[in-house]
Amino acid sequence: MNPMTSLALRYDGRRLLILDQTRLPREEAWVDGGDPDAMVGHIRRLAVRGAPLIGVAAALALAVFAESGADESSLRQAAASLRAARPTAVNLMWAMDRMAERIPLGAPALAAEAEAIFREDVALCEAMARHGVSLLGAGEAVLTHCNSGALATVGVGTALGVILRAWEAGKVRHVYVDETRPLLQGARLTAWELARAGVPHTLLTDSMAAILLRDGRIDRVLVGADRVAANGDFANKVGTYGLAVQCRFHGVPFHPVAPWSTVDLACPAGAGIPIEMRDAAEVRGQGGRAWAADDTPAFNPSFDVTPAALVTSLVTDRGVATAADLQAGILARLG
Amino acid sequence: MNPMTSLALRYDGRRLLILDQTRLPREEAWVDGGDPDAMVGHIRRLAVRGAPLIGVAAALALAVFAESGADESSLRQAAASLRAARPTAVNLMWAMDRMAERIPLGAPALAAEAEAIFREDVALCEAMARHGVSLLGAGEAVLTHCNSGALATVGVGTALGVILRAWEAGKVRHVYVDETRPLLQGARLTAWELARAGVPHTLLTDSMAAILLRDGRIDRVLVGADRVAANGDFANKVGTYGLAVQCRFHGVPFHPVAPWSTVDLACPAGAGIPIEMRDAAEVRGQGGRAWAADDTPAFNPSFDVTPAALVTSLVTDRGVATAADLQAGILARLG
Repeated sequence: MNPMTSLALRYDGRRLLILDQTRLPREEAWVDGGDPDAMVGHIRRLAVRGAPLIGVAAALALAVFAESGADESSLRQAAASLRAARPTAVNLMWAMDRMAERIPLGAPALAAEAEAIFREDVALCEAMARHGVSLLGAGEAVLTHCNSGALATVGVGTALGVILRAWEAGKVRHVYVDETRPLLQGARLTAWELARAGVPHTLLTDSMAAILLRDGRIDRVLVGADRVAANGDFANKVGTYGLAVQCRFHGVPFHPVAPWSTVDLACPAGAGIPIEMRDAAEVRGQGGRAWAADDTPAFNPSFDVTPAALVTSLVTDRGVATAADLQAGILARLG
Repeated sequence: MNPMTSLALRYDGRRLLILDQTRLPREEAWVDGGDPDAMVGHIRRLAVRGAPLIGVAAALALAVFAESGADESSLRQAAASLRAARPTAVNLMWAMDRMAERIPLGAPALAAEAEAIFREDVALCEAMARHGVSLLGAGEAVLTHCNSGALATVGVGTALGVILRAWEAGKVRHVYVDETRPLLQGARLTAWELARAGVPHTLLTDSMAAILLRDGRIDRVLVGADRVAANGDFANKVGTYGLAVQCRFHGVPFHPVAPWSTVDLACPAGAGIPIEMRDAAEVRGQGGRAWAADDTPAFNPSFDVTPAALVTSLVTDRGVATAADLQAGILARLG
């Protein structure tokens, strides 16, 4: 096989290295990802994050584990624990289900399947970008939340992939980046990706987006999605719902961008999406340093659910579903 | 005179100490506030903050400066530089104008005026609390943004004063606290004040308020105001406007609480309120530590303006002005 690399991982068939995203932008540290237990830890502490990337990384970790000689029972156990590492990430479950089917066929079949998932993600990103770019006019100012770029996938990204390809096409002139508390993926990762790509950008606290939207300084908001229900409701990083409300109030188009693998047709509506609650310490401070008192109680849902009613259109690799499409159940038909 | 103390300052006629709020909640450090130049610096770096407290602290600093033997010309210069230290704080200007009139009368007159401003603030807080508490039902869950408590005034506070007195009266059962990026006054100061007072509270990132409002977990939102225009538009800590939009969208009552000294009848509408832009470094990190790259461009308005149209009612020490009152120009009449 050919080595497969992306901004966030390096795989050569026997070894898998992942970029520890908790240490960006200050340090580019690569850690071993070939051990499934370690990979579960990396996913939980968000060293590897972004729904599409998690699915690919978990598949490659299982392939490396098989290559190292793990038996079928160990592989089944590893697949199950990887599958449960991030409850919102439906394409992690989907990737693990594909891999689990190949376990009886042995290591070469698992490697081939993981590599196929990798290549598919690259192609899906380009397809989303193609569909998404078609929505934009010339020279727009856009805003995004969290990170949905090359660090969240193994391709160009989902929402940030659309933005990057649109910038190359002259359709984006400026990107506003929500810092995305509590874990600051916007400030740490999206700003880093945009600087790397030479895209003009401005960082803001999440609470500042409303005034930019009010003042007409943002033409469009694009965000990723960790899980899309059959009716078009979707879960994404906490703060997305509030941003969708601001877009509706101020008449600014709002688009989730996600690969079809994120759509969970078995989940009829957003109310059925489980929301992971994380440690209060993440809200009391950042990176191990607290600015609130250590005993301050805190609320820390990792995700929130945005109803389809607040979506202008949903961009997938299979095409764009408008709000009207979502109401008519286009998701089932796109599928 | 009797020494005058509050949660945030200590004054004995010759000396003024202020609690350095940038070091809370980890450390209670008192610094000298009797030198006007130093006080301008304390105001600028937010060691002393909160529109009412700033006015009282600046007046006391001028009184101490006069007591130390400063001549009339130095006092005029000091009053002018204190007056300009925080452009949004209209009651700082109002306090300095009162003090400037007394400069020809000498140090004892300045001390008496500053002490009067102090005592008035204590009484204004109680009046606001009385009017504000009357709005609440029994056992409400409320949310607040930034800090508008005993650390922002020399009394019980403005919005947080209402909340504290309402809790004592059994009208508040829980307080949700926006962390208030970028300077985290909610996480650092409001949570500290509530813990001190034994009030049950939960800290959240600013981006999480929308889902609590959606889920009916918050009955009412109360915030401070740094400056109120004649039509009821008001400036407050950045993030307030977005919160007002969320309240309107979700049908939750939204109340600014401010002393009458905050109302600027010479300013017809919110568009006339100047917004202080602060250093981008505050958005790139916190407390001198950056998590974004050092060259990441950032947007950092300190305040935003909320239109009267999004206000359920405005609480002042002179009474409560409803949205209809505000439209009818009640401010001019309350005045």
